[in-house]
Amino acid sequence: MNFLKKFYLVAPGPTPVPHEVLLEGANETIHHRTPQFINIMKEAMEGAKYLFQTTEGEVYAFVSSGTGAMEAAVQNLLSAGDKAIVVVAGKFGERWRDILKAFGINTIEIELEWGEAVRPEDIKKALEENPDAKAVFTTHSETSTGTVIDLERIARVVKDTDAVLVTDAVSSLLAEPLKMDEWGIDVVVSGSQKGVMLPPGLGFLAIRGEKAWKLVEQSTLPKYYFDLKAYKKKAPENPYTPAVNHIYMLKKAIDMIKEEGIENVWERHRVLGEATRKAVKALGFELLSKRPGNVVTAVKLPESIDGTKLTKIMRDKYGVTIAGGQAHLKGKIIRIAHLGYMGPFDTIAAFSSLELALKELGYKFELGASLKALQEYFAENLKG
Amino acid sequence: MNFLKKFYLVAPGPTPVPHEVLLEGANETIHHRTPQFINIMKEAMEGAKYLFQTTEGEVYAFVSSGTGAMEAAVQNLLSAGDKAIVVVAGKFGERWRDILKAFGINTIEIELEWGEAVRPEDIKKALEENPDAKAVFTTHSETSTGTVIDLERIARVVKDTDAVLVTDAVSSLLAEPLKMDEWGIDVVVSGSQKGVMLPPGLGFLAIRGEKAWKLVEQSTLPKYYFDLKAYKKKAPENPYTPAVNHIYMLKKAIDMIKEEGIENVWERHRVLGEATRKAVKALGFELLSKRPGNVVTAVKLPESIDGTKLTKIMRDKYGVTIAGGQAHLKGKIIRIAHLGYMGPFDTIAAFSSLELALKELGYKFELGASLKALQEYFAENLKG
Repeated sequence: MNFLKKFYLVAPGPTPVPHEVLLEGANETIHHRTPQFINIMKEAMEGAKYLFQTTEGEVYAFVSSGTGAMEAAVQNLLSAGDKAIVVVAGKFGERWRDILKAFGINTIEIELEWGEAVRPEDIKKALEENPDAKAVFTTHSETSTGTVIDLERIARVVKDTDAVLVTDAVSSLLAEPLKMDEWGIDVVVSGSQKGVMLPPGLGFLAIRGEKAWKLVEQSTLPKYYFDLKAYKKKAPENPYTPAVNHIYMLKKAIDMIKEEGIENVWERHRVLGEATRKAVKALGFELLSKRPGNVVTAVKLPESIDGTKLTKIMRDKYGVTIAGGQAHLKGKIIRIAHLGYMGPFDTIAAFSSLELALKELGYKFELGASLKALQEYFAENLKG
Repeated sequence: MNFLKKFYLVAPGPTPVPHEVLLEGANETIHHRTPQFINIMKEAMEGAKYLFQTTEGEVYAFVSSGTGAMEAAVQNLLSAGDKAIVVVAGKFGERWRDILKAFGINTIEIELEWGEAVRPEDIKKALEENPDAKAVFTTHSETSTGTVIDLERIARVVKDTDAVLVTDAVSSLLAEPLKMDEWGIDVVVSGSQKGVMLPPGLGFLAIRGEKAWKLVEQSTLPKYYFDLKAYKKKAPENPYTPAVNHIYMLKKAIDMIKEEGIENVWERHRVLGEATRKAVKALGFELLSKRPGNVVTAVKLPESIDGTKLTKIMRDKYGVTIAGGQAHLKGKIIRIAHLGYMGPFDTIAAFSSLELALKELGYKFELGASLKALQEYFAENLKG
């Protein structure tokens, strides 16, 4: 096939960046200490609060990946020897645990099978057993399994204890409802290359309330680059050189998100997530997750199909990038995203190429079955 | 004046980014774990070695500002209570010291007046007095004063001791000769938004030799995001999501630098630096630095001129951004850069606008004096 390869990114991050955002980033780099830039930064960081649904809190943007923002949360809230509860139900829960251990935190782990969602009562029990825990570290959307936890109810459980609730919303922000003020979440970290529709390059940390800031004051873990106190003092500027062109892009992307309205953004993700789950079932496959969310759908493959081959054919032959499985799930699952700058026809393209690749690998099914399921769902749900 | 404001960035970072580099960064974001991206990353990181003049060493690119790369050097080479020598002769020497202190390092400070350059014999003496020092932290180009140290001779002094030489080349890389292998430098940190001609967003750490890697092995300082071992293991990929679009830009900028040739890049900066020093003298001003380099020129202002007003007029009226003084030098000096994507006519524009602003502030001089000096120098030195 000698066709021009048109490119589709349907993976859970980086996600497609709108052309108008990319071009915004191609504007001339200006100096970060000029009033001209500080105004842009101020608008962008004020706008960022909308993404986290907070007016009480503050949002800081590090030049880092999401992992940098996770480290920042640990470094700024805790001191060596502190006790923290951490939920581990996938690769990103493991990352919280690994960061906590690297910094000498005494971790109480709630370990679950990959694909399971921690229940509010599990957190409640852990907090009752560990009243001296300073923080609960959770993963709102566990990207490795497509699982989304009930953050609202979990927040309710943590709210009236002495511990703060910290959540990794790197992949969930904007794809799943998250209301920092209303639900009473203390600290949320995220990144630029998922729902926010930017290239990778910014890590976000949102923080609200006295309980969280008090921990920041008390924290003795060594830190410099991610020291929140320096960011707080210099806001809306960064204490060090910010990613100037990313801030242009952030402002532009927030304008787009505001124009759509955050409820519509959430609803778009819900519709695409539900459509994807229906299409998966139409192919005779099962979901990995016990509580699937609207960020990415993890699909169990029959043993006869090698997931690594499948994603390779989709990518190299058809130009469609989805994600495979991580760690012990490598080759055994595929993950189809519905995250960020995506609409119904991205999902259509994903399943069209998936069907063609499945056919090539000898899987028996009726060609078009997943597309028919998508069409039926879209016909009902895109009427508005 | 109602003219369209044409914009000139003549500050020591961020520096102007070539349009072809900016547009490269506006290409579609692709997934960072695809062979397609890994090939780009591999080429970019191989190319980056040329910037540091190393084939023996490795270069890693963090998603961070230069300060992040500085923290990475400290976190990865040292352990709490270790002794390190640090040169403090300006704002960025202070930053080394502050990071070292934040991580509990026992610092031996060589403190100099701002504008002075540490001498190789000062380092030699400090090492003799502190044979247990694990590292010497230096600032190749102290951006706050325009001073460049004799790194080659300093490297010679440190080479035969047990200590490693770490240098902050954030602003000097490509503007001043730096030959990691030939001079025997152990660790160099830099950033993307200076000589490398990219927007801010990448921090670089180059490391070579057994002495440095042995310290990395021994280091017990807590770290995760900047943990070099994770980067080494995953190279040329990043362990966490890299700044995909910055890597496109890095590859493009390195192609441009290779086409010019690094010796020509150094020579271009030398010519622009010397031209700038001549123009400064033609206006009757003095240099702040005792050992001025070719990155940025710091100019002492007479008491009658407020540097803050001067830079504001240049920026807001003429669209030309230079830098003022930092800390106790605020308002007392200006800093004119010749760094990165700059040619003779950027220097011409800087001095043209500087003269107009000086005139407005009542400084007595012959209009055109600095431009005449530049023309005479350029006529001689741009003949080739």
